[in-house]
Amino acid sequence: MATLGDIGVSAAINILSAFIFLLAFAILRLQPLNDRVYFPKWYLMGLRNGVTQSGAFVKKIVNLDWRAYIRFLNWVPDALKMPELELIDHAGLDSAVYLRIYLLGLKIFVPITLLAFTVLVPVHWTNSTLRKSGFTYSDVDKLSISNVPLGSQRFWTHIIMAYAITVWTCYVLQREYAKVAAMRLLFLASEKRRPDQFTVLVRNVPPDTHESVGECVEHFFLVNHTDHYLTHQVVYNANKLAKLVKEKKSKQNWLDYYQLKYSRNQSNRPMMKTGLLGLFGNKVDAIDYQTAEVERLSKEIAEERERVKNDPKSIMPAAFVSFKTRWGAAVCAQTQQSRNPTLWLTEWAPEPRDVYWRNLAIPYVSLTIRRLIIGVAFFFLTFFFMIPITFVQTLATIEGIRKVVPFLKVIIDIPFVKSFIQGFLPGIALKIFLIVLPRILMLMSKFEGWESISALERRSASKYYIFNFVNVFLGSIIAGAAFEQLKTFLHQSANEIPKTIGVAIPMKATFFITYIMVDGWAGIAGEILRLKPLIIFHLKNFFLVKTENDRKKAMNAGSLGFNTGEPQIQLYFLLGLVYAVVTPFLLPFILVFFGLAFIVFRHQIINVYNQKYESGAAFWPDVHGRIIFALVFSQLSLLGLLGTKHAAQSAPFLIALPVLTISFHKFCKGRYEPAFTRYPLQEARRKDTLERAKEPNLNLKAYLQNAYLHPVFKSDDEDEDEEFDDKLKSNGTVLVPTKRQSRENTPAPSRMSANSSPSRPNAIDQIQ
Amino acid sequence: MATLGDIGVSAAINILSAFIFLLAFAILRLQPLNDRVYFPKWYLMGLRNGVTQSGAFVKKIVNLDWRAYIRFLNWVPDALKMPELELIDHAGLDSAVYLRIYLLGLKIFVPITLLAFTVLVPVHWTNSTLRKSGFTYSDVDKLSISNVPLGSQRFWTHIIMAYAITVWTCYVLQREYAKVAAMRLLFLASEKRRPDQFTVLVRNVPPDTHESVGECVEHFFLVNHTDHYLTHQVVYNANKLAKLVKEKKSKQNWLDYYQLKYSRNQSNRPMMKTGLLGLFGNKVDAIDYQTAEVERLSKEIAEERERVKNDPKSIMPAAFVSFKTRWGAAVCAQTQQSRNPTLWLTEWAPEPRDVYWRNLAIPYVSLTIRRLIIGVAFFFLTFFFMIPITFVQTLATIEGIRKVVPFLKVIIDIPFVKSFIQGFLPGIALKIFLIVLPRILMLMSKFEGWESISALERRSASKYYIFNFVNVFLGSIIAGAAFEQLKTFLHQSANEIPKTIGVAIPMKATFFITYIMVDGWAGIAGEILRLKPLIIFHLKNFFLVKTENDRKKAMNAGSLGFNTGEPQIQLYFLLGLVYAVVTPFLLPFILVFFGLAFIVFRHQIINVYNQKYESGAAFWPDVHGRIIFALVFSQLSLLGLLGTKHAAQSAPFLIALPVLTISFHKFCKGRYEPAFTRYPLQEARRKDTLERAKEPNLNLKAYLQNAYLHPVFKSDDEDEDEEFDDKLKSNGTVLVPTKRQSRENTPAPSRMSANSSPSRPNAIDQIQ
Repeated sequence: MATLGDIGVSAAINILSAFIFLLAFAILRLQPLNDRVYFPKWYLMGLRNGVTQSGAFVKKIVNLDWRAYIRFLNWVPDALKMPELELIDHAGLDSAVYLRIYLLGLKIFVPITLLAFTVLVPVHWTNSTLRKSGFTYSDVDKLSISNVPLGSQRFWTHIIMAYAITVWTCYVLQREYAKVAAMRLLFLASEKRRPDQFTVLVRNVPPDTHESVGECVEHFFLVNHTDHYLTHQVVYNANKLAKLVKEKKSKQNWLDYYQLKYSRNQSNRPMMKTGLLGLFGNKVDAIDYQTAEVERLSKEIAEERERVKNDPKSIMPAAFVSFKTRWGAAVCAQTQQSRNPTLWLTEWAPEPRDVYWRNLAIPYVSLTIRRLIIGVAFFFLTFFFMIPITFVQTLATIEGIRKVVPFLKVIIDIPFVKSFIQGFLPGIALKIFLIVLPRILMLMSKFEGWESISALERRSASKYYIFNFVNVFLGSIIAGAAFEQLKTFLHQSANEIPKTIGVAIPMKATFFITYIMVDGWAGIAGEILRLKPLIIFHLKNFFLVKTENDRKKAMNAGSLGFNTGEPQIQLYFLLGLVYAVVTPFLLPFILVFFGLAFIVFRHQIINVYNQKYESGAAFWPDVHGRIIFALVFSQLSLLGLLGTKHAAQSAPFLIALPVLTISFHKFCKGRYEPAFTRYPLQEARRKDTLERAKEPNLNLKAYLQNAYLHPVFKSDDEDEDEEFDDKLKSNGTVLVPTKRQSRENTPAPSRMSANSSPSRPNAIDQIQ
Repeated sequence: MATLGDIGVSAAINILSAFIFLLAFAILRLQPLNDRVYFPKWYLMGLRNGVTQSGAFVKKIVNLDWRAYIRFLNWVPDALKMPELELIDHAGLDSAVYLRIYLLGLKIFVPITLLAFTVLVPVHWTNSTLRKSGFTYSDVDKLSISNVPLGSQRFWTHIIMAYAITVWTCYVLQREYAKVAAMRLLFLASEKRRPDQFTVLVRNVPPDTHESVGECVEHFFLVNHTDHYLTHQVVYNANKLAKLVKEKKSKQNWLDYYQLKYSRNQSNRPMMKTGLLGLFGNKVDAIDYQTAEVERLSKEIAEERERVKNDPKSIMPAAFVSFKTRWGAAVCAQTQQSRNPTLWLTEWAPEPRDVYWRNLAIPYVSLTIRRLIIGVAFFFLTFFFMIPITFVQTLATIEGIRKVVPFLKVIIDIPFVKSFIQGFLPGIALKIFLIVLPRILMLMSKFEGWESISALERRSASKYYIFNFVNVFLGSIIAGAAFEQLKTFLHQSANEIPKTIGVAIPMKATFFITYIMVDGWAGIAGEILRLKPLIIFHLKNFFLVKTENDRKKAMNAGSLGFNTGEPQIQLYFLLGLVYAVVTPFLLPFILVFFGLAFIVFRHQIINVYNQKYESGAAFWPDVHGRIIFALVFSQLSLLGLLGTKHAAQSAPFLIALPVLTISFHKFCKGRYEPAFTRYPLQEARRKDTLERAKEPNLNLKAYLQNAYLHPVFKSDDEDEDEEFDDKLKSNGTVLVPTKRQSRENTPAPSRMSANSSPSRPNAIDQIQ
């Protein structure tokens, strides 16, 4: 049982480390050398470039202007300044709505915290159960429900609070769902033309012996959507081609590296070995060898491209079908085409960037089997992952290694190595597993056959949330590995399970407070520092970069990572809702997390991240659903807890809560979810009419002709990054240049003008 | 523990009573007097009429031809003869597919019975556990799993059998689902034009201050479905009008009765009292009074009809929108119309006969709340219905009555009344409840707001199934009222519940065998006798019938009653699947039920029932889902049972079964269910093209103009029965006269021609 003092120490440590991270960030970001690490978004948008206009070489690397350091926390108001509409323009709807999850956390928990502190803290504090009990206890426990005597009438407060929290949470959730749904519809109906508005992805085209897939698709849609069909693009199986392109890119990198090396030191022509990892094989002239390799690959790529284009076998039974109007596409996406509902499956085409090409050709029956397999595999992964890890851990002891690889005995017995192994190895297996876990989950989702990257991330997020819920949340509350919990729950009756959980919850409050500070405070502050991309950028910059273009490539802007980020936020919602009634003392820590994370991620989204795709906030139903789950879970655990407090008369009042909450969820699902899965015809028609009036002579066919070409066909010699960039620009959809310059250097015109404006041009010179 | 002998006696009694019912039916149906009771379908179709062509008066009433009695079981082959396609023409797809449920039972259980008797019976019989145990046991128990010793390796047989049964059941289910889905699509795409193919039901039309509902609908669809919109019909709130029409019909009935009475006995003009139930009030001339009343009502109806038609407030925010093509309707029904997905809700219009007019105007939010209320109410009804009934039962004792109504003491103390009360009253409350239950469930479904009669019946069937499962099946297996079971289950762990159920199952085999014989054998045989309609018809015929038309009205053809019939069949599927492995001795009893019921209901559907609506077998997904539920339940209970048999190693093999079954269900749902909820565009387009080629000048607007008029507007002086009949004919959809005469008198041309043909014309004469 940690005391308030312990928590204070822990808080001090974590606040300090968070502060150090923020300070380091504030300093590093001002160095022109790091500009591309901390502001890559602006470079990618072409609103900032690295060309130095003036100043000495030193000034290019280090910022010597002391005034810039004084304002080192300026990025916070800067991050908050950009209005939401501009943020949507700047970074896309996905990012803007993602930020709203943090805001939602604040909206839900600020009033709940205030209420809980006014009502529950006095109710808890003014008891003396713990003092009388004779057990050791801390001040934190005095603030929790444990301090209320058994059978007390005060538990009515908790029941009423549970109702208040539910009503408030549902109210906020409903408003937010409505708002996000409206934002999505507005975004989809925005003025800009996008290929996916006109296009439908058709899968499971039935094989036909007389016609090619393309002809088959054309005939089918000419017959069944006579007035609306415009054109289509078949999907090529270009996996081999993509592999070749990737290989060529890697060789090209090496070529660049050797050329740069040679250009720096002309006396010594670089040599390399052709064998495994450059360690074995013949020694050859590196530049010549790599040039030859690149040429060979270019030729192979050209051949493969021809082969893919001409071989009917490389055409997959899927196509992107485009329509003359948005109305036609909306109709086709929402209806069933053929008698056999597993053929001619239509759905909205994802954005071209968002398509996950490999999965487009999976037949329907196979999907069911794949999902079953993954379902079972995920179950075992969640509940039994500790078994192989424990096994590895037993191997990774001194004795284990001695047994398995006896010839290493000599090394192992060196004292330093020995202590390293003993201290470090046992934990490393688990650590590696946890680091690799999101990738494993993503692979699982890919195997399930989802056809867009956004869907893959959503599915992975669901899996990650379940894993976290079972192994982090339940695993902390009820000690023991997941499969032991599973056994416990299987052997407990339905009304015992909430009690087991409910009783354990108040005891773990201090643990979770520490967890929030480490993961939520210091972790988030670490995010803004971008240590890994910083190091990699400088390594690349030193070894590979020759041209501006290369430097652009070396920037790794990264993206939001919905599949790991959102489950993390959800854990905080869960903690907040579960502890709101039980130990309200935990709530302020969660508030700090939501506030800090909101600012940090707003800054990152504005300045750093470059989203890989735009799904139009299609993830919101998942976010909403998981918060509802957390709410219901919190209600059930409170029910269990009060059941052990001899407050039995409270049960009938509390059992209504989950029923009402689930009913509310159903209502929201019916009311708002269609906005995320369907596209209303009214909107489509309105948009079509508007467009026809504005641009009567638009050549839509030309516009859509190559929108859904596999990326490897798009460009030959340019690499993917650029191509991707070009696509963005040519589509003109998401990353439109705003009139605004990067915020962090533009002073707010009103308040600070007197003292900071004069130094401004100078500072900009220095930074650039 | 019943012995084989006990079961034999019970079987004899039930077979005898079933035989008596069948014999009585065979005799009664041959009497010309009863012809309209046993063959109403043919009268309604106009293929048979009651006009006597020749013969004496006696012959009109009693069949004196002894040869007809010899062939008294002829109806069985007759019922089986009509091919399925003709049956669909004759009675609609719903009925034909309903019969397939019984066939499905035979298809599933005949091979399972054979397999179980070859494999399991020897495995069970050749043990001696029961003999050694010293308990009393019967031969039935020797045939059950109870006879296998604990921890025996023989339990592997049961595991393999469970797999075999699951695989076979799923295989049959899948084939059947495919077949029914194909039948449905064929039926929907059949040559005949039907108004519901072109029409979409639009609900939640938003209120508009400037436009009426009709204008609003017209504008919306002219804009959003420009090329396809044809016409629409608004929905009137005609509930008051419908009530008046009903009242008038009742008065008219009385008038007919008095007029008939007067015409039989001209000397005495009938008198009646105007007060309550005809017991109080002034005595007046009955014919004059009723004539005046009918006239008054006719006037009121005319006024009300005008008012409804002209008052904008009586127009509900719903409309039937018709399109120029099936394609247009299919598109509109499957897509979302407006940004707000709770407005402009579109769905396939049910058949005109199938519309439940009262529910068309319920707004979306209200639906969620209604369903929540009914969900909670149904939960309490299922688990706690015994509480009020027990309360009523305590009141209905001698002492209870004495307390509540002391002035009845004198009557109560008469010995006969006393014994009547003691013997009869306590049970009557439960009996009445069980009789009223389907109506209660139907009322609940109506309150939920479903907009077609078929949907109401489907929802009621689901509720009735759950009620039966909990109170009949579980209630018999685990003694005690439902709320006590609920308590038991809540206090048991997840792996204890299947054990509790599993252990109890073999012990109840003899009870369920008796149940099957009473409910399934004698009950079904009683169904064909139609005792209640027989009596009512003769009463009506005597007191009311004046004209042929009246006689037609007096026939109560009845219909299938999906809401009570299907849950009953499902109970047999459940019993069969649960006992297949445990006590295979029960299977033949189920086979007899399915066989007998198939023949009986095939006969009834051909000769008696007149379906109220045609939903195109929309109920099949429910049927399929419930059999899957029964299968999973049987697997889990077997798992529980084997868990107590010290056959623990079997659990891992069995746990895979429910996972696979549920996965199979998901596959079927994705693969076949869309055929029941959506209408493929390809089909629609094909049908449209065909029709345009065949009838280029079709005036579709005229055809659809009044298809969806509220029934009370359709006709004035005719009553509903006729009106309904007319509608059937005018639509020309379901009840098309077949070229075939009623089967039961037409000899098969080949086999029986030599001996029966000569007597035929005579027999027909006599019957008619």
